[in-house]
Amino acid sequence: MDKTIYLDYQSSKPVDPEIIKEMTDYLSSQFGNASALHTDGDRATKALEESRKKIALFIKAEQPKEIIFTPGATYSNNLAIIGCAMRNKRKGNHIIISEVEHISIHNIAKYLQRNGFEVSKVPVDIYGTVRLDKLKDLLKEDTILISIQYANNEIGTIQPVVEISEMAREEEVYFHSDAVAAEGIIPIDVQKDHIDLLTLSSNDIYGPRGLGILYIRQGVHVNPLNIGGGQERGLCSGTEDVASIVGMAKAAEIADKKLEAESARLKDLRDYLTKNVLERIPRAFLNGHPKNRLPNNAHFRFDYIEGESLLLTMKDEGISISTGSACTSKTLEPSHTLIATGLLHEEAHGSLEVTLGRYSTKDDVEKFLDVLPRVVTRLRDLSPLTR
Amino acid sequence: MDKTIYLDYQSSKPVDPEIIKEMTDYLSSQFGNASALHTDGDRATKALEESRKKIALFIKAEQPKEIIFTPGATYSNNLAIIGCAMRNKRKGNHIIISEVEHISIHNIAKYLQRNGFEVSKVPVDIYGTVRLDKLKDLLKEDTILISIQYANNEIGTIQPVVEISEMAREEEVYFHSDAVAAEGIIPIDVQKDHIDLLTLSSNDIYGPRGLGILYIRQGVHVNPLNIGGGQERGLCSGTEDVASIVGMAKAAEIADKKLEAESARLKDLRDYLTKNVLERIPRAFLNGHPKNRLPNNAHFRFDYIEGESLLLTMKDEGISISTGSACTSKTLEPSHTLIATGLLHEEAHGSLEVTLGRYSTKDDVEKFLDVLPRVVTRLRDLSPLTR
Repeated sequence: MDKTIYLDYQSSKPVDPEIIKEMTDYLSSQFGNASALHTDGDRATKALEESRKKIALFIKAEQPKEIIFTPGATYSNNLAIIGCAMRNKRKGNHIIISEVEHISIHNIAKYLQRNGFEVSKVPVDIYGTVRLDKLKDLLKEDTILISIQYANNEIGTIQPVVEISEMAREEEVYFHSDAVAAEGIIPIDVQKDHIDLLTLSSNDIYGPRGLGILYIRQGVHVNPLNIGGGQERGLCSGTEDVASIVGMAKAAEIADKKLEAESARLKDLRDYLTKNVLERIPRAFLNGHPKNRLPNNAHFRFDYIEGESLLLTMKDEGISISTGSACTSKTLEPSHTLIATGLLHEEAHGSLEVTLGRYSTKDDVEKFLDVLPRVVTRLRDLSPLTR
Repeated sequence: MDKTIYLDYQSSKPVDPEIIKEMTDYLSSQFGNASALHTDGDRATKALEESRKKIALFIKAEQPKEIIFTPGATYSNNLAIIGCAMRNKRKGNHIIISEVEHISIHNIAKYLQRNGFEVSKVPVDIYGTVRLDKLKDLLKEDTILISIQYANNEIGTIQPVVEISEMAREEEVYFHSDAVAAEGIIPIDVQKDHIDLLTLSSNDIYGPRGLGILYIRQGVHVNPLNIGGGQERGLCSGTEDVASIVGMAKAAEIADKKLEAESARLKDLRDYLTKNVLERIPRAFLNGHPKNRLPNNAHFRFDYIEGESLLLTMKDEGISISTGSACTSKTLEPSHTLIATGLLHEEAHGSLEVTLGRYSTKDDVEKFLDVLPRVVTRLRDLSPLTR
């Protein structure tokens, strides 16, 4: 199978070979149900609880029991927001999210609105940073939860989580953060950041798919979304996928160890890419914050270019890249994140997201820099907008 | 690590090495997000849809799109029952399950009862077979759904699904069946059986954990349980775990191919085991149906024996075995299934479930037959009940 130049790490990451080996070793030798009382069950329980400890260490949680394994980040977001809303509806029915949350959170918000909750959306500035002054204005007596991402999954802007959590604590409101775009790239410390609920995905630290976690600070309570045998403290029933859990725990260990050096490496690579795109292509602009952004993320817009054509032409050139969130890529709507930063529809449509990762090389970047200006020139030559 | 004699296939199955290889191959070469528009995304979509076709063939579904991938059987049961109840609540608020359903379904029933639904439970006969006459009596104007298992997960009794589905169709009521205990051991044909909603688990056909399916017949509608990017026709949002899905599809192919010969082999082994247990141990009885039961299942009770002590002594002897459902094994309640068949609490507590599988050998059975009578005698000697 032909290898592509892969520049879409935000949408999916290859599983680290070391983690594939860890999972294969587990699958080849163990298979007990952690709820069973025999030796094979005991072994599964041990593997499960050791993994929970490793994940707790990864985000500096106080206790392993604050880590709940879920089928993935979307599920974790549902459990955090719907679970918290339902559990606390007697305290209030107002929830705050930001304009630039992941599509899953916007859809959860719609669901809650249909079910009697009021949802406010904090606007962002031109860089995609949540406006703290506006957040303060939105907080009110019956606000029960603020859900704001750790960093944006499209334009990479890092949000002021410490300031948000302080505001939440002052007002005695729970704070949930979707940290999927940030995990493994910038350090996360749920105690220092004082986050009540935190979503992580396994694949976003090069672990297997189909697994996420929800960190739930001790003392915070949420209602379950599905019912069953009562696994994961009753919050995520269903027999645990211990092989994947062992894989994610290994992924967290590796991510922790590599984080500093790898983030520096990615930042250099990304800065080189950004500089060259902006230099080599006329009327090219950087979306998102110029500095306060994830080190692996670059996001551009090009005047007179339609993103969909750009993406498909890049695909023909063997480059896998995205115009924004993969989860919305099959719709024709422009990115809600870009619109929130003040871009016009046509500007948002002319955008391209580049996300680098563990296996990205200078060579990948050079090939991309070789192809992109040529493709942009060709598309502009064909465009009615430039005639 | 010391190998145990594993006789608890109902609670968890080892993943077939051929499937581990299939998944490892996939994970080592592919990783695209099926929602992405580039080549890596296209490859993921192709793998996903080919897998969906294979699963459809496995249960003789008319169309691949009737197969929804979920995080596991518990989730499928939730989606089927809660999703169907919520979607159809304007038609009626009455749901029927059986007394011997898996614990997840009993817990879902409790949840629905707390949320304004009426739930009736069909009783079973002494073999654990659902009483069709009683089911008929329970059906009423506002019944919207019957949920009855394909076969029992504890005592192995096969339910009369064809008769149940006929009754459901006559009354225009949806029929959901949890087929986890039956899949891969007896053939399932959703069209011939006329099942509207069917739950399968990947691990129960030797595939990876953390994955299940819900078959939803075309024309049947359910509400989603969680909200997000709209994957799986909006019924199970979250990026698909394609590696596991590819594994489950392979598992279905293998299960289909092996089903007939393997079931015959397991039946012989199980019959040999049953005969010898009943012959060698005085006051030993078979629970469940003498004939109409899963070919890999034997379930015994022993007078004057406490199941928990039996299980722990067997564990010391290196035998992994269960007293009933693993999902309830950490509670001290006797099995609701055994109680439903008319056993007294003390009789239910003296029970032992043996489930054989693909890697069970005559040697395993001989070792079990060597140990069990000795252990039963020892425990009876210690028991105050026999003094």
